[in-house]
Amino acid sequence: MGRMIDVPSDRGSRPGPASTGELNGVLKSRREFLARGMAVAGGAAATGSALAAPLEIPPAAREMGRPIPEAMYGMPSKFEAHVARRRTDVLKNRQNWSDWSMTPLQHQPGIITPNGLVFERHHAGTPDIDPKTHRLAIHGMVRQPLQFTVDDLMRYPSVSRFHFHECSGNGLTDWLKPASVTVQQTHGLLSGVLWTGVPLSTLMEEAGIDPRGTWVLLEGADGAGHTRSVPMEKVLDDSLIAYAMNGEALRPENGYPVRAVIPGWEGNVSVKWLRRIKVGDQPWHFRSETARYTDPMPEGKWRQFSMVMECKSVITSPSGGQQLKGRGFHEVTGLAWSGVGKIRAVDVSFDGGRNWREAVVEGPVMDKSLTRFKIGWNWDGAPAVLMSRAVDSTGYVQPSVEDVKKSRAIMGFVQHHNAIQPWSVNEKGEVRNAIGQA
Amino acid sequence: MGRMIDVPSDRGSRPGPASTGELNGVLKSRREFLARGMAVAGGAAATGSALAAPLEIPPAAREMGRPIPEAMYGMPSKFEAHVARRRTDVLKNRQNWSDWSMTPLQHQPGIITPNGLVFERHHAGTPDIDPKTHRLAIHGMVRQPLQFTVDDLMRYPSVSRFHFHECSGNGLTDWLKPASVTVQQTHGLLSGVLWTGVPLSTLMEEAGIDPRGTWVLLEGADGAGHTRSVPMEKVLDDSLIAYAMNGEALRPENGYPVRAVIPGWEGNVSVKWLRRIKVGDQPWHFRSETARYTDPMPEGKWRQFSMVMECKSVITSPSGGQQLKGRGFHEVTGLAWSGVGKIRAVDVSFDGGRNWREAVVEGPVMDKSLTRFKIGWNWDGAPAVLMSRAVDSTGYVQPSVEDVKKSRAIMGFVQHHNAIQPWSVNEKGEVRNAIGQA
Repeated sequence: MGRMIDVPSDRGSRPGPASTGELNGVLKSRREFLARGMAVAGGAAATGSALAAPLEIPPAAREMGRPIPEAMYGMPSKFEAHVARRRTDVLKNRQNWSDWSMTPLQHQPGIITPNGLVFERHHAGTPDIDPKTHRLAIHGMVRQPLQFTVDDLMRYPSVSRFHFHECSGNGLTDWLKPASVTVQQTHGLLSGVLWTGVPLSTLMEEAGIDPRGTWVLLEGADGAGHTRSVPMEKVLDDSLIAYAMNGEALRPENGYPVRAVIPGWEGNVSVKWLRRIKVGDQPWHFRSETARYTDPMPEGKWRQFSMVMECKSVITSPSGGQQLKGRGFHEVTGLAWSGVGKIRAVDVSFDGGRNWREAVVEGPVMDKSLTRFKIGWNWDGAPAVLMSRAVDSTGYVQPSVEDVKKSRAIMGFVQHHNAIQPWSVNEKGEVRNAIGQA
Repeated sequence: MGRMIDVPSDRGSRPGPASTGELNGVLKSRREFLARGMAVAGGAAATGSALAAPLEIPPAAREMGRPIPEAMYGMPSKFEAHVARRRTDVLKNRQNWSDWSMTPLQHQPGIITPNGLVFERHHAGTPDIDPKTHRLAIHGMVRQPLQFTVDDLMRYPSVSRFHFHECSGNGLTDWLKPASVTVQQTHGLLSGVLWTGVPLSTLMEEAGIDPRGTWVLLEGADGAGHTRSVPMEKVLDDSLIAYAMNGEALRPENGYPVRAVIPGWEGNVSVKWLRRIKVGDQPWHFRSETARYTDPMPEGKWRQFSMVMECKSVITSPSGGQQLKGRGFHEVTGLAWSGVGKIRAVDVSFDGGRNWREAVVEGPVMDKSLTRFKIGWNWDGAPAVLMSRAVDSTGYVQPSVEDVKKSRAIMGFVQHHNAIQPWSVNEKGEVRNAIGQA
């Protein structure tokens, strides 16, 4: 459609002004959707209304705006003040040092969480560390104990990688009945980040690992002295010492100036404000590996070191607390991720799991990264139950709570909730958490 | 290295705790580098120093940190206050409404610019628009003139895409001699953004384009009423009506609540605060298409509608104003991008263009997106001139200024500077803008 336009360039010859218009997957999906006869609002405008001429000049176009200051770090519009990370009312500590705040996933499109909205979880508040005085030590079973300033670390070859980041406690209040209202409360201990740092394998190579060294200890410089044990296998595979996130220095609450990033594993293993790496020949069994972050099993035992975050997904729109704006076309969209690979597919059900349709997975699809899925839905005004089910590149299928119950005991504050999340829609279009009811 | 660790999961069977450790391109590059005998600091620690035991407990680990507030939008550490977008001293307007502020690329790793640092360029300051009252109209040569609220637009099928965003004036002060000091000043009218919005083709389809409709007009709701003409070919190819950037609503200075995104074309065509789209049968020849944003040609004519941003690259570290911290290993890294496709390769020279080596291009490599390149360099302490040269997926090679001079006249405030940027390093390790001197 339209004639070819000759847009000039400095090239001698070039194959036209731009690539030929190839329909992307999402649009194609919608066209298929329309083609199936589930046309939107009578086949005319999906949501727009007829224009009443003449056009009015809006107030903003009649005056000068804010001038540009000499130097600035920009902030969101005042009209977006409701978009914030928040503590939850569902499980609130009396103090707020060992605490968490959650990402507003219902307001996040795409696969990146803005740094101002990346969730927080820490055990003694956020320290305020001067990068000039901070040091990272590597010691224990190594040939040469070393220490590094932040500038030292920045001189090494760096990598930048997109990874999801999720607290093992994400969803722990909502296993059997709906305690939380919004997806921020049910799934908001989750963010998507482009991490930049040094492969931990590079630093291990410099220090020289004793052949007996099969585990490392990671310790933070926070008031809790948060400490975890990580197997050397994972350290040498894809772990990073990160100093930047989403294109700038780490934020204070996310580990500034230096943290570990253990991709795909429960968030607290990626120790923040990292000050010490010790190589040993066995795990240390810290409090965070005995009293916390363990899983009850059916036979009455507790499972340690279950650090992989398994494949999971959630519909972020429509989601709990939202209100559908009328019948007709709605885009249903959400996030999927897996701690062991890429997302292969996401299925969506509109009838509580009886029938499933494959959603469009939007690229780039990356290893251990948030992945966005989308599917068109023509709401006929009847009650419905929406749910999503992800499959990862190993073939693992996201389970239901009933599936999880077969291998684990669901009691108390249970970690590692990767089961399917249902949202119900009533005749008024109100969306509610339907866990345990679908 | 290291024995296999059995990390438990809920899976029946799984192929080990994580994928086998495959060296990424960058690390492999460094190993090759080391293997070539250009070993770093005597083959031991690249930059770390021997650890003096015992380890000290840092001050932050002895006290509680900041508790978590009820609701918060987080900000960078106070120790990062120097990282800001800035006006330039090189070409400063007496007023600061029709003005620009530049992204600190020397501090940005990866391919995303944090929203607080995305560059600004506008013609009458930033308006403060209430999304509830904003309307977008489509009229002119269409079957059915329409208008949309922001909520209307959000109901359409959406896409999220990574694209670079660059002002056509980026680099205009530094064609023939070094006027600017830093890469923020030479190249900082450039940012990397994950845009989310509706394909413009979807809205055009709803309105119904008259077969004579070959151009569209885009008009903003700012005090300048900034207006541009865009060929229908490009509109239907990959253009978006965006309402979000990098995972949240557009920032006020970047077009809140709604803007056009015309991928790969000069930034000002992606009209911000978009209020009107009119379909016509020819371009409108606005002031921004005659008095501004045109290119002088050798024969004394001026070229209009040269809106494609051609393939380009720049080394961001080390870059102007920085200081190398001693001899030995340095990672040389920068950004490459092309308005017509993907980056195929980037070459780097350390001797002012006599010899070139191919850098590692870090994935994901995406269409019309910032792409990060990296290469190891062993600085021997002698003066050097560093430059990068990108090649895109059409085979186009980034030119030198001399190359550009063959087809265009370089005089006055010339737009579309995509030539190679040289940085000189003197014996003290001081890095300087070497345009015109290499």
